[in-house]
Amino acid sequence: MAQTLTEFDTIAAISTPIGEGGISIVRMSGEDAIKIANEVFKGADLAKVPTHTIHYGHIIDPDTGEPIDEAMVTVLRAPKTFTREDIVEINCHGGIVVTNHILQLLLSNGARMADPGEFTKRAFVNGRIDLTQAESVMDIVRAKTDKARQVAERQLEGGLMHKIHAMRQEILDTLANVEVNIDYPEYDADTVTAKQMADTANSVIKKIDRLLSTAQEGKILRNGLATAIVGQPNVGKSSLLNYLTQSDKAIVTDVAGTTRDTLEEYVSVKGVPLELIDTAGIHHTDDKVEKIGVERSKKALERADLVLLLIDASKDLTDEDEALIEETKDKKRIIILNKSDLGQKLTVDQMKKLTDSEVISTSILKEKNLDELEELINKLFFSGIENSNDQVMVTNQRQTSLLNKAKSELQDVVKAVNDGVPVDIAQIDFTGAWDTLGEITGESAPDELITTLFSQFCLGK
Amino acid sequence: MAQTLTEFDTIAAISTPIGEGGISIVRMSGEDAIKIANEVFKGADLAKVPTHTIHYGHIIDPDTGEPIDEAMVTVLRAPKTFTREDIVEINCHGGIVVTNHILQLLLSNGARMADPGEFTKRAFVNGRIDLTQAESVMDIVRAKTDKARQVAERQLEGGLMHKIHAMRQEILDTLANVEVNIDYPEYDADTVTAKQMADTANSVIKKIDRLLSTAQEGKILRNGLATAIVGQPNVGKSSLLNYLTQSDKAIVTDVAGTTRDTLEEYVSVKGVPLELIDTAGIHHTDDKVEKIGVERSKKALERADLVLLLIDASKDLTDEDEALIEETKDKKRIIILNKSDLGQKLTVDQMKKLTDSEVISTSILKEKNLDELEELINKLFFSGIENSNDQVMVTNQRQTSLLNKAKSELQDVVKAVNDGVPVDIAQIDFTGAWDTLGEITGESAPDELITTLFSQFCLGK
Repeated sequence: MAQTLTEFDTIAAISTPIGEGGISIVRMSGEDAIKIANEVFKGADLAKVPTHTIHYGHIIDPDTGEPIDEAMVTVLRAPKTFTREDIVEINCHGGIVVTNHILQLLLSNGARMADPGEFTKRAFVNGRIDLTQAESVMDIVRAKTDKARQVAERQLEGGLMHKIHAMRQEILDTLANVEVNIDYPEYDADTVTAKQMADTANSVIKKIDRLLSTAQEGKILRNGLATAIVGQPNVGKSSLLNYLTQSDKAIVTDVAGTTRDTLEEYVSVKGVPLELIDTAGIHHTDDKVEKIGVERSKKALERADLVLLLIDASKDLTDEDEALIEETKDKKRIIILNKSDLGQKLTVDQMKKLTDSEVISTSILKEKNLDELEELINKLFFSGIENSNDQVMVTNQRQTSLLNKAKSELQDVVKAVNDGVPVDIAQIDFTGAWDTLGEITGESAPDELITTLFSQFCLGK
Repeated sequence: MAQTLTEFDTIAAISTPIGEGGISIVRMSGEDAIKIANEVFKGADLAKVPTHTIHYGHIIDPDTGEPIDEAMVTVLRAPKTFTREDIVEINCHGGIVVTNHILQLLLSNGARMADPGEFTKRAFVNGRIDLTQAESVMDIVRAKTDKARQVAERQLEGGLMHKIHAMRQEILDTLANVEVNIDYPEYDADTVTAKQMADTANSVIKKIDRLLSTAQEGKILRNGLATAIVGQPNVGKSSLLNYLTQSDKAIVTDVAGTTRDTLEEYVSVKGVPLELIDTAGIHHTDDKVEKIGVERSKKALERADLVLLLIDASKDLTDEDEALIEETKDKKRIIILNKSDLGQKLTVDQMKKLTDSEVISTSILKEKNLDELEELINKLFFSGIENSNDQVMVTNQRQTSLLNKAKSELQDVVKAVNDGVPVDIAQIDFTGAWDTLGEITGESAPDELITTLFSQFCLGK
C-alpha cells in the first residue's frame, strides 16, 4: 500500500511557527495546488513556470482585487517534492493576521485545511519515506540537543529502515526455503529447514537485541531524562536548580502555544537533555509550605528516570534523610553530599557503605565538583554512546514495543523448533515476526496506526 | 545616499519565528551568500544554478562531513531580490536546535549575524524601498487586525511615499523659480516669487493637514486603541471584559518572547483593535483589595485613548460614580448605563444632561445593546475611515512629528512672506520643509535615525 501513488485533494497550512517573524510560509500540496495559487497570485502565470522556481508578486483577494501582501511563491511539481505531489509555497511578510488571511484565501479557493502531519503522511503514503523516517522528521523538529538531532538525522537518512529491511530480508530468504520445502514434500528436508528457521530466528534476535539496547538512550535523547531533585529544606536544591538552569545550559523550549505555568525546565548536561521535574515545587519546599512540597516531591519521584538526592554533609544524617534514601532506593540515583565547604561529617565512603548508588561530594555554593557531577550523570546513562557515533538508535515507544513483539515471536519459533513442532506451525510465528518488523517501517502497518501516528505531528508539517 | 548600491558584508539570520514548526528559514544576504551556502550544501553547485531556483539537498558540516538536516535551498541573485544583493534562503525541517545549528555553520563559514531589521535596511539603503515602505513591512508583520494590515499594505505599495514625493516636488518646482530670481536679480520679481512661495506653502500645508488628520486613526489601527474599563465594584466590568475577550473577538498576540504576565489584552471590535488596559486590575477591583484597584485604575486612565465608564443604572448615582465622571471628563469616553434589565433609575437622557459624552444603556449580563456599544466605539474613532478605503494614512509617531515639523516650517514661510521678510531669508524655512519631508521617506534622513529605526525591527527581517 505504501508504494502506490494515490490521488488526494489539495491541502494547505501555515508551515512556519506562528508569531511575528521575518517570513511566514503557507504551504499547499495536491493536484490543484498550482491552480489555486494562480487564482490568488499576481506576478507570474504559475501554470507555465518551470518546476523548482520562485516568483515575486502579490497575493490578491480574487473577489475584491485587493492586494494582501507582497510574496515570493515557489512552484514544485510532482514527483520530485516532499509529498511527491505538486507543492506551492507562499513566502509572505509574516505576522499573524497576514498569514492567516492568505491561508483563508487558499481555503476559500478550493484547498482544504491540512491535518497535523498530513504533508509528511503524504510523503509516506506516496512511498517517498518509510514510517521511521517520518517519525524522525518530528524528532528533528523537537530535538532538544545536538546529539538528539544527530540521531534523528541518521534515522531520516534511513539508518533504522535499512536495518529493519535487512532483518526482514533474512527472514524472507529463509521463508522462501521453507516454502520450497512445503511445496515439494518429496525433498523431505523438514529438519534442515527447521534448523534454518531457528538459526535465522536467533540471528535476527541478536540484531533486535542490539537495537533494543539503544532504546533507553534513544528515549532519553528524544524526550529528555526526567530528573527529580530531592532533599531536605535548605540542603541546596534551589542552588543546584539555579546552577543547572543558568543560561548556557538552559534549552530554549519557548514555543508558541506552550503554557508558561508548566513545571518542567530542560537543561543540557554534556549533551544529555535533562527534564527537571517540578522545579516550581523545589522553590516551594525550600521557601514555603512544606507539606505541599513533600507531596509534590513524591509525584515528581514517581516519573523520574534519575533522582538527584541532596544530603547536607556538614551535619549528621537526619531521620528525614534516611527516609528519602529509603524512598528513592529503587531509582537510578546520584547521592550528592553537599555543603562540603562547611566541613564533612558524612563522607563519600561512609555513604557508599549504606547504598550502592553513585555518591559524590560537592559544594554547590562554591561550584565545587559540579563538573564531575555532570560527568557522572552522563556516564550513568550514556556509557556506550560516546564512541558509537554511527550507531542507529531506537528512539520511541512504538519502535521499541514492535521490536519486543518481533523478538518474542522469534523466540517462540526457536522454542517450537526445539520442541519438534512441525515446520508449518513454527512458520506462523516466523511470518508474524516478518509482519511485525514491517509495521516498524510501515510496510505492513494498519491504517488506524498510521492515522494516529501522524496526528501527533505539528500543523503544517 | 539612499539611491546608491553599496557593497556590504554577508549577513545571516533565522527569518521565521523561533519555535517548533514545519519549516524554518535561515536567510543570507550579501556578496558571499552563494559561496558560503555552497560550502555547507550538498545537492547542487549553487554557484552554477540559475537565479530564482530552489534545490533539494543536505546541509553538511564541512569540517566533519556530518549531515545536519535535509534542506531546500533557494538562490536569488542580485539585483532582483529583497535586498538587491545575492540572497540564499535555506528551508530546513525546523526546530530550535537544527535551525540554530545551520545558522552557526553559516557564521563560522564567513557570514556575520544580521542585526535586527538589517535585511530591510539593505533594501532601503540599496534604494529598493523608501523609509515609509520599510516601516510598513514591520507594520504588516505586527498588524493586529485586517484593517491595520490593509493600511500597512497600502503604505508598502508606496501610497505615503508618492504623496510625500508629490509635496516635495511642489516645493522643488517653486524653489527652482526662487533660484532663478536670486541668480538673475535683473528680473527683480521678488514679490512674485514671494507670493509663489507662500501659495505653495499653503497648498502643501493643506495636504499635510489631510495626512495628519489620519494620524490618530493610523496610530490606533497600528497600536490598538488603549481602552480603560472603569466603574464601581460589581457594576459589570468583569462581565464586559469577558464579553470583549470571548474567543471570536480576541486577537492572538501569542508571540514567543512575550511575557504572559502582561496586563494587556487585544480584542477586535468591528475591525478596531482595542488594547484593554490593566485587565488584571479589573478582576482585582471587583474581587479583592479595593485600594490597590483604585490606584491601578488611575494609572490605566492616564494612558487611555478611550474610557468605558460603567454605571449601575438600576441604582441612584453614587458619590463614587460622580467622582469617576469628574475624573474622566477630559477623556474620550462612553458612559455605559449597565444593568438595564434590573430597572432603570438613571436614563440615557438624564445622563446626557450631565455630560456631553456618548451614553448608552446596556445589560451586559443579557448581552443587550452590546452590538450598539461596539458600533459606538467604531463611530467615535473611525467615522471617516469606512468610506475611504483608498486613503493613505500616517501610522507612526515618526511620520506624524516630521509632518508637524514641515507644517510649522511652511507656516513660518507664509508668515515671513506676509511680514515682508526678504525672499532669500524665507527660503531657508522653505528648503527646511523640503528636507523635513525628505526625512519621512529617508531621502534626507541622518544615518543615526536610520540605524535607530531599523533596530526596532525583528531579527531576520
